[in-house]
Amino acid sequence: MTNPTHTLSSRVAEGGALLKQDMAARAAVIESAIDHLLPPTTGGDARLWDAMRYATLGGGKRLRGYLAVTTAALFDVSETQAARVAASVEMLHAYSLVHDDLPAMDDDDMRRGQPSTHRKFDEATAILAGDALQTKAFEILASNKTHASAEVRIDLIAAFADASGAAGMVGGQMIDMEGEGRALPLAEVSHLHALKTGCLIRYSAESGAILGQATPDQRARLRSYGTAVGAAFQIADDILDTTATAEELGKTAGKDEAAGKSTFVALLGIDGARKEAARLTEQAIADLAPFGARADRLRDLAYYVIERRN
Amino acid sequence: MTNPTHTLSSRVAEGGALLKQDMAARAAVIESAIDHLLPPTTGGDARLWDAMRYATLGGGKRLRGYLAVTTAALFDVSETQAARVAASVEMLHAYSLVHDDLPAMDDDDMRRGQPSTHRKFDEATAILAGDALQTKAFEILASNKTHASAEVRIDLIAAFADASGAAGMVGGQMIDMEGEGRALPLAEVSHLHALKTGCLIRYSAESGAILGQATPDQRARLRSYGTAVGAAFQIADDILDTTATAEELGKTAGKDEAAGKSTFVALLGIDGARKEAARLTEQAIADLAPFGARADRLRDLAYYVIERRN
Repeated sequence: MTNPTHTLSSRVAEGGALLKQDMAARAAVIESAIDHLLPPTTGGDARLWDAMRYATLGGGKRLRGYLAVTTAALFDVSETQAARVAASVEMLHAYSLVHDDLPAMDDDDMRRGQPSTHRKFDEATAILAGDALQTKAFEILASNKTHASAEVRIDLIAAFADASGAAGMVGGQMIDMEGEGRALPLAEVSHLHALKTGCLIRYSAESGAILGQATPDQRARLRSYGTAVGAAFQIADDILDTTATAEELGKTAGKDEAAGKSTFVALLGIDGARKEAARLTEQAIADLAPFGARADRLRDLAYYVIERRN
Repeated sequence: MTNPTHTLSSRVAEGGALLKQDMAARAAVIESAIDHLLPPTTGGDARLWDAMRYATLGGGKRLRGYLAVTTAALFDVSETQAARVAASVEMLHAYSLVHDDLPAMDDDDMRRGQPSTHRKFDEATAILAGDALQTKAFEILASNKTHASAEVRIDLIAAFADASGAAGMVGGQMIDMEGEGRALPLAEVSHLHALKTGCLIRYSAESGAILGQATPDQRARLRSYGTAVGAAFQIADDILDTTATAEELGKTAGKDEAAGKSTFVALLGIDGARKEAARLTEQAIADLAPFGARADRLRDLAYYVIERRN
């Protein structure tokens, strides 16, 4: 656990270094799992698999996948098993980015400093690659190679679908689009982000508990932790969109403001947004209390999401 | 079973009338299940649910759903239970049509005589509605409201994902696009349609066997039946695209030829295509032999797919 002689800031700095190391190590494992689950092909569908690989491999912080493997580790779930669940959620996240970037949606040419999938390939291929990544994400969870009982796999699939569909991520995207150009109150902005980005982050944190057959209290705590981390992540995103450069972000900065979207920064001011993010981080850390020192990286992560520069 | 004093054509005519009646009755049950599973909402996501309902309700032959409920009935699965599986496959089919119709894909303004979803709403809404329909299809199968064991639900989900993803329907769509403007050999055209439309029709016929916990032989037979019906269906589609009017089809006729797609008609001629469809129908009927008179509507359906005018 935390050494009480350390100040908060030295604790954060030290934890940040360990977290960075751990995230890199886990990201490599997740990357390898994705690579294995999306083998390149040579047939008439080669372009589809190439686009699926392009959209998913070689990039990103793997925040969602990291949450899945790290919460699973609390319950001694094997890394191989957890990496499949992590790969599945990263594929779903990737599909949402591919479709979000389409001209009819956010019309983004760049993603993580590279051409977005429809720019690298074409629009039709990007639509299909997104569609197939979603299917693949469910297929992985259903597969008996996940080495979990049918009950556990069904539990994962139900939670995953709930987080990512019309009542979750996609619903949030719709509310976000509908709100463009209108000033939304704070409660609505919170709600739309809870759906749009929060649900999948919450599911990622919860997935380890499902896989590890946690007690209802443990599961509820990780769910609550994931909800708070997801909300803090989005507020930090709004702050970065205002303060970071395009080079740091690897994508166009200031886009939300330009699109007339209501942001936390617009509603609370930079300082107010920072305070709210810090409050959520403290709450997330409180949720982890019963897990002791094993959850230290999850504590570090709660700080990281509001401290990151990209 | 068939009355041996009947000629084939009177048998087909009589069976066709019974089938028409039965399909209408089952379609009403499936429609009601979809209506129940996709309730309209009033929040900021109302447009999304409206588009999902628009894309799924009030139309179509419900061929896939009919196969699911009719094969399930062979094993005395309750209609309520089977209707959920049928609704799920119809939602997946609907999502594929919504995305297929997009400007970047087939660019179709009409579907079943009505504006396609992106014309009725807008492109972004159509993309999201398709995405959410796919999620919903998996969510329904995972739900314990399906009243099947976790093992059965996992079995359904795995077969469903296999049929609809990159190795199934979406892979077929990609191969179809890649083949535009090139003359493909018969084997490739067969392969692409086996993926693009065949897999989901095969899954639909197999889903009743999974739900009904059929023996491996029964399941293999329904799978084989579904494969043959799916192939015959596609050949009949190519024939209709050449011979039917836009009014009969409810969509633009002659589109495949205009798009430079290799069709069965182009490769085999109208007569050759009709013969191949008839051969597949006979094979499908042979697969049903052990099911006796209970499978009569499935026999009628095998004729229907090649006799239909839309």
